[in-house]
Amino acid sequence: MEGEEFKVAAKEMVDYIVDYLTNIRERRVLPEVEPGYLRPLLPPAAPDTPDQWKDIMTDIERVIMPGITHWQSPNFHAYFPATNSYPATLADILSDSIGCIGFSWISSPACTELEVVMMDWLGQLLGLPQDFLFSPEGTGGGVIQSTASEATLVALLSAQSKKLKELGHTPTTAHPQLVAYTSDQSHSSVERAGMLGGVLTRLVTSDEQFAMRGPALRQAILADIKEGLIPFFVVGTVGTTSACSFDNLREIGELAKKFGLWFHVDAAYAGSAFICEEFRYLMDGLELAHSFNFNPHKWLLVNFDCSAMWFKNSNDVVEAFNVDPLYLKHEKQGQVPDYRHWQIPLGRRFRSLKLWFVMRMYGKQGLQAHIRKQVSLAHQFESHVMEDSRFEIICPVTLGLVCFRLKNEDNTMNEKLLKNINAGGVIHMVPSKIRDVYFLRFVVCSYQTESDDVKTAWKEVKKQADLLHL
Amino acid sequence: MEGEEFKVAAKEMVDYIVDYLTNIRERRVLPEVEPGYLRPLLPPAAPDTPDQWKDIMTDIERVIMPGITHWQSPNFHAYFPATNSYPATLADILSDSIGCIGFSWISSPACTELEVVMMDWLGQLLGLPQDFLFSPEGTGGGVIQSTASEATLVALLSAQSKKLKELGHTPTTAHPQLVAYTSDQSHSSVERAGMLGGVLTRLVTSDEQFAMRGPALRQAILADIKEGLIPFFVVGTVGTTSACSFDNLREIGELAKKFGLWFHVDAAYAGSAFICEEFRYLMDGLELAHSFNFNPHKWLLVNFDCSAMWFKNSNDVVEAFNVDPLYLKHEKQGQVPDYRHWQIPLGRRFRSLKLWFVMRMYGKQGLQAHIRKQVSLAHQFESHVMEDSRFEIICPVTLGLVCFRLKNEDNTMNEKLLKNINAGGVIHMVPSKIRDVYFLRFVVCSYQTESDDVKTAWKEVKKQADLLHL
Repeated sequence: MEGEEFKVAAKEMVDYIVDYLTNIRERRVLPEVEPGYLRPLLPPAAPDTPDQWKDIMTDIERVIMPGITHWQSPNFHAYFPATNSYPATLADILSDSIGCIGFSWISSPACTELEVVMMDWLGQLLGLPQDFLFSPEGTGGGVIQSTASEATLVALLSAQSKKLKELGHTPTTAHPQLVAYTSDQSHSSVERAGMLGGVLTRLVTSDEQFAMRGPALRQAILADIKEGLIPFFVVGTVGTTSACSFDNLREIGELAKKFGLWFHVDAAYAGSAFICEEFRYLMDGLELAHSFNFNPHKWLLVNFDCSAMWFKNSNDVVEAFNVDPLYLKHEKQGQVPDYRHWQIPLGRRFRSLKLWFVMRMYGKQGLQAHIRKQVSLAHQFESHVMEDSRFEIICPVTLGLVCFRLKNEDNTMNEKLLKNINAGGVIHMVPSKIRDVYFLRFVVCSYQTESDDVKTAWKEVKKQADLLHL
Repeated sequence: MEGEEFKVAAKEMVDYIVDYLTNIRERRVLPEVEPGYLRPLLPPAAPDTPDQWKDIMTDIERVIMPGITHWQSPNFHAYFPATNSYPATLADILSDSIGCIGFSWISSPACTELEVVMMDWLGQLLGLPQDFLFSPEGTGGGVIQSTASEATLVALLSAQSKKLKELGHTPTTAHPQLVAYTSDQSHSSVERAGMLGGVLTRLVTSDEQFAMRGPALRQAILADIKEGLIPFFVVGTVGTTSACSFDNLREIGELAKKFGLWFHVDAAYAGSAFICEEFRYLMDGLELAHSFNFNPHKWLLVNFDCSAMWFKNSNDVVEAFNVDPLYLKHEKQGQVPDYRHWQIPLGRRFRSLKLWFVMRMYGKQGLQAHIRKQVSLAHQFESHVMEDSRFEIICPVTLGLVCFRLKNEDNTMNEKLLKNINAGGVIHMVPSKIRDVYFLRFVVCSYQTESDDVKTAWKEVKKQADLLHL
């Protein structure tokens, strides 16, 4: 495929996706295919000679679309958002075409340097403590990771290396006495990071607001110290997946300081809200953290993947796993970040272009308006729920998540309700469970979600409840 | 930015990148900027209100291009290729727009199922042993990881978990007796994977062909067993970064079997060549491996990131770090892969679209022609070197890498030569060093590289050697 042919194909593809996104409400949000649906639709092997572009375009509707869960649909209310946007797509076209691999400064200086500046722009937008940002005197700075799960693992491994150095051990061999802490409400990827890192992870019991608090954490730490274990790492969550609850960062941070733990804050979903000043109270105490992470690819209109992570002392990660062969060295080392030391993979795409295009094409006010609108839509859904005496809200609605359930019914009936809602094909939600109470999660996800879509969603919930004769 | 505005902007961007790639030879391959060049070119913070699209387009040349190392230029001969292609870019536009996160089957069935089929198509193209592919009876199967470094880490952590279970230990806590093996020629990311995983890694001395062989590995394993250590993992490399040398997979595989080690094969660069039957002798013994990885994003015209990894027993990775909260569960679990268990991050893009588009738009024959042409261009460069008595080839040219140096000069003079070549701005190469012998690496990288570009490169090398009065 040469340039002129590509131009024609790209126009077709662009027209196709604009049509797809514009008319996405017409599609069933959750597909009805069964496992294994796709293989019979394709030949058993790659073709020997080239296929025609037109056949590929045709196959998108024939093969792919029947099996798509439409995350960008205004009827998608599952998990958390994964918002994309046209400006970010434009940036990815450019990134794909430049096709540089930004593992070191010299491997494409613009790739590193734009990321440095964009992480500062973004940190400023969020009102992060100044010492998380780059500065000529300081050690702070930000980096784009692929996902929050990866960011948590990077923080844990950095903390492990730092602690082992402090103890005088070889920092790169296992130490079975190390123990990490997080809330019983934190994302499953935190527990998984502990598994991957080969350390014990304690799930600290959260309070009645589903928040990890100081006293419970202190008790866990003291019990472990008594057993001869070595506490080294704690993850606080700002906006949990189950219920969008908020750990008390200040209490955690003070204990981390007292007991010498690395304090990582995971704000994967909620972090985007901090571009609005009125939500910043939720990150009170963040100045006590060693590292902070949130996902612009969740709620800030930046196509996946783009997970923003900041360190107060970036030397901690750079020195943790530094391998520096000749074929990756360059003359300017030390003057600029070589981001390969800040992450797990070696290679990296030019992802800061997405941040740049999105921050410029929306502006701070445009992004704030997006967040505020989505939060107001969640409150609209909350009102609908509260007006129906069959239902209850099970925790405060702070951002875009509404957790609710049938009030006088058991888990089984709530499970049945959700199953029927998803089978109905009008909207899609997923459940969660806290302390054996099963509930439904309604999340405002798509950038295109409007008040009418929220009404549609509520109508569908009510209809399915009616059908159960509740 | 709405749909119609996006269509106009996308056309501008597509025209821009076609022009960029078509006329890329006119650009200096390695930029001349100094660290910190970019920040003064941008405002200190994100704009409050939206910028104009036209200003963003203008800023690509003003801000970004002066700092780009042009990996897609036919004059780029550094590292290894990171080939992009128009079909892969089209697939990424689609992937960006669908914007699904494929962590489980239900989160977008097409995303998982196309990946399953594409990994089979790709495995067949390479002639992989049948038990690496998906089958109703078997346990094999492939997955797209982000990078080879990540694939190595996944293999190491899976092996660690498997070994600890065999030993009756809790598989998720550290065990300081575990030891891994790889060649002293393997990529730095293998040693780094050991650091990240908290295990000792032995760098086994390679032979005079820079290959890891059985006897040296056996000696290392036996010495460690004698010390009470527990060998559990060995990485064999097919196409090393320094010199594109090839470990003896059969000898390594037989020892791995005898001593109960997980055998991972890293063919990050060279793997693409196995679509041509004449290169498959280089992977003799692969049937003894537990896992295999190569990067279609390196040499197979698939835009970064797309690192293809296969397991003979995918249960080993699935069971290693399986955390399964309610909000990620679905009814069809067990019938289909849930790829979140096969990788380190939770989230994942719809990357198999790139593989699909590329395999279809080139066909097997088109991809084979690309590899064969690039290998022939490397041999062309080799001939130029051999015709000049000042130079020597330091190891056999098998694929697209030519390792050479000034024959009768010391490392310092060779370093000076490379420095001057890179400062000249006509071509770009990076060096390596084996056993204190410094040499230059010429790699055929860009899809657009032609015989005349190889002549240009050689002319530049000769010119810079002449200028040193050699």
